[in-house]
Amino acid sequence: MKHTLAIQVENRPGVLTRIAGLFSRRGYNIESLAVGPTENPDVSRMTVVVEADDEAIEQITKQLNKLVDVLKLNDITREPFVDRELILIKVSAEPASRGEIMQIVDIFRAHIVDISRNTVIIEATGDQGKINAIEEALKPFGIREVVRTGRIAMVRGAKN
Amino acid sequence: MKHTLAIQVENRPGVLTRIAGLFSRRGYNIESLAVGPTENPDVSRMTVVVEADDEAIEQITKQLNKLVDVLKLNDITREPFVDRELILIKVSAEPASRGEIMQIVDIFRAHIVDISRNTVIIEATGDQGKINAIEEALKPFGIREVVRTGRIAMVRGAKN
Repeated sequence: MKHTLAIQVENRPGVLTRIAGLFSRRGYNIESLAVGPTENPDVSRMTVVVEADDEAIEQITKQLNKLVDVLKLNDITREPFVDRELILIKVSAEPASRGEIMQIVDIFRAHIVDISRNTVIIEATGDQGKINAIEEALKPFGIREVVRTGRIAMVRGAKN
Repeated sequence: MKHTLAIQVENRPGVLTRIAGLFSRRGYNIESLAVGPTENPDVSRMTVVVEADDEAIEQITKQLNKLVDVLKLNDITREPFVDRELILIKVSAEPASRGEIMQIVDIFRAHIVDISRNTVIIEATGDQGKINAIEEALKPFGIREVVRTGRIAMVRGAKN
């Protein structure tokens, strides 16, 4: 089962290494990881998505909570949450095919953020399903390059 | 100086630990890291932003290139590139202040993705400056929670 962990950590060197190491030493491959600043400059927030059964996750979260760098950890897998990721896709786009590409961009409420003689870069946000769908829709034009942020997630409503 | 590295790596356990470890052992704090899948399921792509002088970055990239997990590494700092990040912000929002919040959301071309009796969750994308600006604009309402993806970047035009 896919677990989504929201982790608040101290913002200092080595924290990422210690946290990533905890997963890799147990042979778990982190499917997605995003780390960014929070409203407090001393604190970073990570969203980690990992495939593991409930028992394994319980062990991992226990170990994570023992790290002094970890300030707060929530397994939000079973909570109602909003999850989003961001993708940049560079696609081959001769002038003749631009119209069709722009239709796809509109349908997915995405944006063209760069254009050259024979390429465009498209920015899109959404949940994993939408991101996969837009990538699939653009494939026939020739995908040159893809970069994705990894997922971030937040519990809905007033709770956090 | 801030360096932006685009790194393609093998998608397997331990890669993130080895790469993060290379930075932290030298005392460099990764300012932003995003890792996500690419069009090839065996390959992940990372965008790492790190503050370091040119000499230090040269040493680090040499070490990174020695890792068998690293397939391709570009320091795109001096290339023209598009960079974006994604933020989710949960803000206190009594019915009376919702109108004003929605104005800010419109100005930044952001979106409201969740609403409860006294909170909203806002999704926004942009470069670091825009993301900081929207966070600042929402501060007076009371920020409950922030999660950011970290930056991703792509070289403009047909080159990659």
